[in-house]
Amino acid sequence: MKKQVAVIGLGSMGLGMAQSLVRAGFEVHAFDVRPAVLAHFVSQGGHATRSPADAASKAQVVVSVVVNSAQTDSVLFGDQGALQGMQAGSVFVMCSTVAPEYSIGLEKRLLEHGMLYLDAPISGGAAKAASGEITMMTSGSAQAYAMVDPFLEAMAAKVYRLGAQAGLGSKVKIVNQLLAGVHIAAAAEAMALGIREGLDPAAIYEVITHSAGNSWMFENRMPHVLDDDYTARSAVDIFVKDLGLVLDTAQASKFPLPLTATARQMYMQASSAGFGGQDDAAVIKIFPGITLPTKKA
Amino acid sequence: MKKQVAVIGLGSMGLGMAQSLVRAGFEVHAFDVRPAVLAHFVSQGGHATRSPADAASKAQVVVSVVVNSAQTDSVLFGDQGALQGMQAGSVFVMCSTVAPEYSIGLEKRLLEHGMLYLDAPISGGAAKAASGEITMMTSGSAQAYAMVDPFLEAMAAKVYRLGAQAGLGSKVKIVNQLLAGVHIAAAAEAMALGIREGLDPAAIYEVITHSAGNSWMFENRMPHVLDDDYTARSAVDIFVKDLGLVLDTAQASKFPLPLTATARQMYMQASSAGFGGQDDAAVIKIFPGITLPTKKA
Repeated sequence: MKKQVAVIGLGSMGLGMAQSLVRAGFEVHAFDVRPAVLAHFVSQGGHATRSPADAASKAQVVVSVVVNSAQTDSVLFGDQGALQGMQAGSVFVMCSTVAPEYSIGLEKRLLEHGMLYLDAPISGGAAKAASGEITMMTSGSAQAYAMVDPFLEAMAAKVYRLGAQAGLGSKVKIVNQLLAGVHIAAAAEAMALGIREGLDPAAIYEVITHSAGNSWMFENRMPHVLDDDYTARSAVDIFVKDLGLVLDTAQASKFPLPLTATARQMYMQASSAGFGGQDDAAVIKIFPGITLPTKKA
Repeated sequence: MKKQVAVIGLGSMGLGMAQSLVRAGFEVHAFDVRPAVLAHFVSQGGHATRSPADAASKAQVVVSVVVNSAQTDSVLFGDQGALQGMQAGSVFVMCSTVAPEYSIGLEKRLLEHGMLYLDAPISGGAAKAASGEITMMTSGSAQAYAMVDPFLEAMAAKVYRLGAQAGLGSKVKIVNQLLAGVHIAAAAEAMALGIREGLDPAAIYEVITHSAGNSWMFENRMPHVLDDDYTARSAVDIFVKDLGLVLDTAQASKFPLPLTATARQMYMQASSAGFGGQDDAAVIKIFPGITLPTKKA
């Protein structure tokens, strides 16, 4: 008999992860609030369920890929939430970007109900989710790992195991989001200055991606600016949220983060100007007095 | 007969570039204010000269690899400066990081003396200089390129040709320094937060260098923090200077650079605290309330 697994949330990451699990030969019981997305997943070999509770009743491992801690709380503890369907000893795998303190508290709440927990934020984007090649930043108990290992290997190219305490995975994810958010804003600032100085944006891209000023985010996001394509792969408002989580985490111990604070203001400026739903590269639109590249005819 | 070239300034970059020229079969006439460095270069097949003027009198191409615009002015126009030795029609190759306006003005001043000019800032570090694999961000006239091309190819893995006007090379270098300076400060901020949150610094390095938060600078500089080795490969004070040049460039057109301004304050804080001569990764020492890794016994 095939191993069963539940996936809650078929967004750009969750759908790809669920597809990777199907491809690896597992029976995947999915829930999403959008019927069309569920129907699409069924056409690819997955199973649709009526609620998080229904999905969770079909498997001992529940993978949650929702947007934030509020949605995580809702799909787990809400009406028809996963907890109502989970058998004692099941594992809840939390893949969202959340405050580490929230993740630590979530493990405690689940333990009180006799459930196991894996802190498991993800990185890599929709394409890597679909190909089973995301990075997972995980921490949790040996019992939890023993139950989820085959599923993690099916979803991820690299599973980092950061320790036995919940929160370590989320802390590393917070450090990653700090860098990712600052780097996109820095890429925008640098590209904007170059354009202001009369340089060819394509030449800037070519030189920087072969120089010490390069970053993963510069290389990945600046083509959106060069192509005048601000279709949201990940939106400006995601970094308003994520850098907020980074600052909240540091504020708990009164720790200063000058660049993070500045970058977050840049994303808020972009959002406030009406670009919150656009691709995060649209943070470049806060810079006045420059003409950005336009779509080729 | 071998082709002749002059190199002024045998610092960590200039020495490697001069060595690469010797290895490529050129006669290299070098000047440096430090006799021991010159003697070392002679032992490797180079020629020592008594002054910039003396070096410049031996070749039609003069490569200047000094720290800033003040030194450039001094080695070119000062007492026993290169201009006194240069024959009409010779080329001055300016490899320092300077304000683009300075570079544009320098070409005009040289043209008035019948000399050619190449705006040619460099990137890549001492190791790549020694192996002839630096990146050069160049711009200048076709006549200048025609004279310097064989020498550029000997020094660089990649020569970017950004246009016919002096200043374009320096502008791209300024964009690169903006990113490099912000990325080192961001790497320090992220590593500091991770340490504050109780993460293992080596684990942070391992995960981030395989995730979307990575940058060339994070990967290159954070090992200095992990190894507690702040021997200056490039010092904190270099970024106080370079981010100052970036801000001056933008200020000329009243252009805002929020992240650059913040990062520069971080380098100034580090310098003011006594770390200006240490490796630029020492910017992490501005963060209070954390214990940085110490040297293994």
